[in-house]
Amino acid sequence: MAIEIDLAEYLFKRLIELGLGSVHGVPGDYNLTVLDYIKPMGLHWAGNANELNAGYAADGYGRIKGISAIITSFGVGELSAINAIGGAYAERSPVVHIVGTAPMAAQKVGACLHHTLGTGNYRAFPEMNKWVTVAQANLTDAETAPALIDATLKACVLNSQPVYIELPTNMVKAQVSVPVTPIDLSIPGYDEAYENEVVDKVVKRIQGSTKPLILMDGLTARFRVTEEVNTFVRLTGFPTLSAPFGKGIVNESLYNYYGIYVGDVGDAVIKQQVDDADLVLNFGPLHSDVNSFGFTAVPKADVTISLNMHSIKFGNEGGHDGDVISIKSFMRKLVRRVSAINLPAVRTFNQGPSSSRLLLKNLKPSADDAIIDQDSFWLRMSEFLRPGDLVLAEAGTSFAGTSTIVLPENVILINSALWLSIGYTLPALQGSALAQREQRKDGSDEGARSSGRAILFIGDGSLQMSAQGISDIIRSRLDVTIIVINNNGYTVERVIHGFHEHYNDIQPWRNTEAPNYFGAPLDDSEYPVVSVQAKNWGELRSVLRRKDVRAGKGLTMIEVFMDMADAPAPLKKLSAYVSNRNKTNGS
Amino acid sequence: MAIEIDLAEYLFKRLIELGLGSVHGVPGDYNLTVLDYIKPMGLHWAGNANELNAGYAADGYGRIKGISAIITSFGVGELSAINAIGGAYAERSPVVHIVGTAPMAAQKVGACLHHTLGTGNYRAFPEMNKWVTVAQANLTDAETAPALIDATLKACVLNSQPVYIELPTNMVKAQVSVPVTPIDLSIPGYDEAYENEVVDKVVKRIQGSTKPLILMDGLTARFRVTEEVNTFVRLTGFPTLSAPFGKGIVNESLYNYYGIYVGDVGDAVIKQQVDDADLVLNFGPLHSDVNSFGFTAVPKADVTISLNMHSIKFGNEGGHDGDVISIKSFMRKLVRRVSAINLPAVRTFNQGPSSSRLLLKNLKPSADDAIIDQDSFWLRMSEFLRPGDLVLAEAGTSFAGTSTIVLPENVILINSALWLSIGYTLPALQGSALAQREQRKDGSDEGARSSGRAILFIGDGSLQMSAQGISDIIRSRLDVTIIVINNNGYTVERVIHGFHEHYNDIQPWRNTEAPNYFGAPLDDSEYPVVSVQAKNWGELRSVLRRKDVRAGKGLTMIEVFMDMADAPAPLKKLSAYVSNRNKTNGS
Repeated sequence: MAIEIDLAEYLFKRLIELGLGSVHGVPGDYNLTVLDYIKPMGLHWAGNANELNAGYAADGYGRIKGISAIITSFGVGELSAINAIGGAYAERSPVVHIVGTAPMAAQKVGACLHHTLGTGNYRAFPEMNKWVTVAQANLTDAETAPALIDATLKACVLNSQPVYIELPTNMVKAQVSVPVTPIDLSIPGYDEAYENEVVDKVVKRIQGSTKPLILMDGLTARFRVTEEVNTFVRLTGFPTLSAPFGKGIVNESLYNYYGIYVGDVGDAVIKQQVDDADLVLNFGPLHSDVNSFGFTAVPKADVTISLNMHSIKFGNEGGHDGDVISIKSFMRKLVRRVSAINLPAVRTFNQGPSSSRLLLKNLKPSADDAIIDQDSFWLRMSEFLRPGDLVLAEAGTSFAGTSTIVLPENVILINSALWLSIGYTLPALQGSALAQREQRKDGSDEGARSSGRAILFIGDGSLQMSAQGISDIIRSRLDVTIIVINNNGYTVERVIHGFHEHYNDIQPWRNTEAPNYFGAPLDDSEYPVVSVQAKNWGELRSVLRRKDVRAGKGLTMIEVFMDMADAPAPLKKLSAYVSNRNKTNGS
Repeated sequence: MAIEIDLAEYLFKRLIELGLGSVHGVPGDYNLTVLDYIKPMGLHWAGNANELNAGYAADGYGRIKGISAIITSFGVGELSAINAIGGAYAERSPVVHIVGTAPMAAQKVGACLHHTLGTGNYRAFPEMNKWVTVAQANLTDAETAPALIDATLKACVLNSQPVYIELPTNMVKAQVSVPVTPIDLSIPGYDEAYENEVVDKVVKRIQGSTKPLILMDGLTARFRVTEEVNTFVRLTGFPTLSAPFGKGIVNESLYNYYGIYVGDVGDAVIKQQVDDADLVLNFGPLHSDVNSFGFTAVPKADVTISLNMHSIKFGNEGGHDGDVISIKSFMRKLVRRVSAINLPAVRTFNQGPSSSRLLLKNLKPSADDAIIDQDSFWLRMSEFLRPGDLVLAEAGTSFAGTSTIVLPENVILINSALWLSIGYTLPALQGSALAQREQRKDGSDEGARSSGRAILFIGDGSLQMSAQGISDIIRSRLDVTIIVINNNGYTVERVIHGFHEHYNDIQPWRNTEAPNYFGAPLDDSEYPVVSVQAKNWGELRSVLRRKDVRAGKGLTMIEVFMDMADAPAPLKKLSAYVSNRNKTNGS
């Protein structure tokens, strides 16, 4: 006879099997009994201050671990988190959103319970969530619930996108059979013969190419093939560029890595060489306006091969049903093949004059009393970062600025290039630093790659959106460094429109008071806290030289003051494009 | 020839006509040019720290002023606010949600712009918003836009529920005719003859009754008939009870006001008298589980007349198309009629033993060193409040606690009895205090009724959800008093389930540091700030005796410490019901 367990236990068992170590969320009366399982099953409860932050944190956690979970209450809690779920959908983070719903009898009669809209319709919320999740399950039947859970979690992992699970209070302890086989993660429609054909085709295209190019984009990080693509980049020696969203995936110390590709906004030298390419291998493309700098960094379709999670697309050719590959298996085969064939002679690729490496090499030290300027600041951060660091860059100034940093090896960069919801990265720092800590403990390969610090760059306006994330960081005693760029308001918006308008001002906060307000322990031996300001280069240099700051243990906050009118060069250029498009009904 | 103005100016003109004085929201590149109109048109920009808080604030503002507006960016901003819009829908606050959308050309081709889901579908967000708004408009055509705006604003005002307006960036300056006639707010299907019939019918029912009763509920506040219903209560002398959501509408000094009706949870004495009634006039009913204490405070259908915004329902009789009244006009007629007829002899209604007036009268002063207990604390607040105060009560402990306060005249109470999204009231305090300030300035009748202070009661867990609301309060230099009940976590959840479970704990904040962190001016003459703790009765009494605290000018924060296990009596009873229902699949 099958051993029976509670339905909630089944759900968590499967999540743990997929690698889950922590659960994000906020308690509410419709999910309290679900929360009872977390601690006994060895999971860590992040206990976020609000649901939006829980959602953002889950997104960050999922980007590192490949699985993530958030628990909310139906209605209020789930809707507070839905912007974060939208972001996970857009930029592909595998987040399982578990919603504690009302008892089924109440739902059936449309009872006017708290957290409903008062219309008696309990389906409004799942309907809203359909737009931002790839699978939905309502666990109303103990017979079918386990299979439904498995199918939903599979959709989450295979698409690397969020799913939605409703768990009515009366079903939490429903008895179901304990799982006896591992969860099925086979790719629907996977066709090995087709995959082999595609490998042949790609190899042939490589061999026929004289000016090949690799363009690395951010969705590649979701494919969990970082090792394979780096081997590929190294073996081929092909000139390699990165989209801002894809930065950090390719080891930037490789001789054939040439930096960020920003299309019309960047060097004409680079642009010309990309335009001249007769083959572009575009890994994990996400051609949003921001990531492609007004679509000018999208490679020409006729020479491009796009490598996606389950499909390879050749130029403008459409795919067919059944044309399904596994990128992991594909890349392993491709790497084996290219290591055994003659490759095209490596093209000499010229560095552009605004290449970060060149700029950094030529950067003169600023005077101690000089105001901290954006362009030098970001380049200098190349020297502060260390191999294995996890770096998060908030939308706006930090997104543009970090794209100019020369990253040490094995630095993971988390940023946003499509959804761009300001305030995302502070909670995402909490989630990803938690994931990093778990990976270090479990001694996995990923652990070795994330052995460094967790460092966030964020503007003062964005920080205000989700500031409670600092509380969540303290609560879980995470090791993080938060570098707040204080430039007196929404600089990215100022640059686009209304430079001196009051609506781009913010209420000025005393940012370095944050650890105190959010209840950081006073005893450094329990949890070390550093919270300092840097108003000029001299102050910044002495802060960054501090041993405790370099160690990055506990909570380190550095508020860096910059001029309101200053912005990294790429941001100024991008903003001009956005401003013009919005005014002229362009696309 | 008609004078032409920009479409955005038309929209704001209409909103100003409806009474709007301030706009809530967050700037974003798709709405910046809309924001250009705010200041020149004499509107105040609240400039919230995030969109959820902007939405909550707009809800609070709308409850006071009868109209409200929030501006966000499409995708990210609007979804961050959608929980607040859901609350405004459920509890009926007239919020106009203006969403800055992408230029139409980009939408048409499904361009992969930032803030989209990357699917090319720009209709996902309005589809999600349909569930929580009563009308939607997409301003893509200058010809039809003015009529569309008018119809949408009308739906907002007449339903007292949120509406959704998409304004593409390229349409902001589209030329439209300046409005020449006031916006049409006539009620569709309004039938004066039918309304007169209903007045007759109600008068007849009153005359035929020997045990009439008035049950006042919270939606009545949206009907803007507070003066009329108070006259009615006074003239008839009928025993009058209030639902928790309706508290504050009826002047509690009236001799025939008998307090909150809590069904099975309260006095058997009161319950018996309600059950004995042969006529219940139920104004603005909202029979949610929480407001009706597990549906036990819902009056018997066969003796009940429900008075809604546009309909009067007799017992279980269904309405018909065309049975549309105006509650304002109806109430004026009813008041005239009852002042001219013989009314039933006033029934002697017995106060229950747990009546707040009785309890307050018999309350012994606590010793100075005694811990502050919930039941005495809330009763004592009856003595702190003054006529004209605006009081907000957060969900949970404060909701239950304030229901036991004996309110002075003309106190407006804002609470939540259906949506119950924790964290709502802090931003709602910002919005409603701003509305109160505007009304005082404009010298209206409403201004006279809201001449007092703005006071919020909120728990420490709820405060964390939306703490940035304090920053928004400081930014607009509002006069508010925030009383934080610090009982070490989510007490309402503890009482329901998992009393000692870690998931009901919160990260302990240093709450009195909030004004400092959020950048309150140090100069008291610019904006006075008081931030103090009270750990026992002696400390609380001396705080409440302070002249500056009593004045309530600037920002006053009082953190009141209570025992984790303590909760107001009604909350304990309600929690037992919720806990039981959730476990047993009840409704």
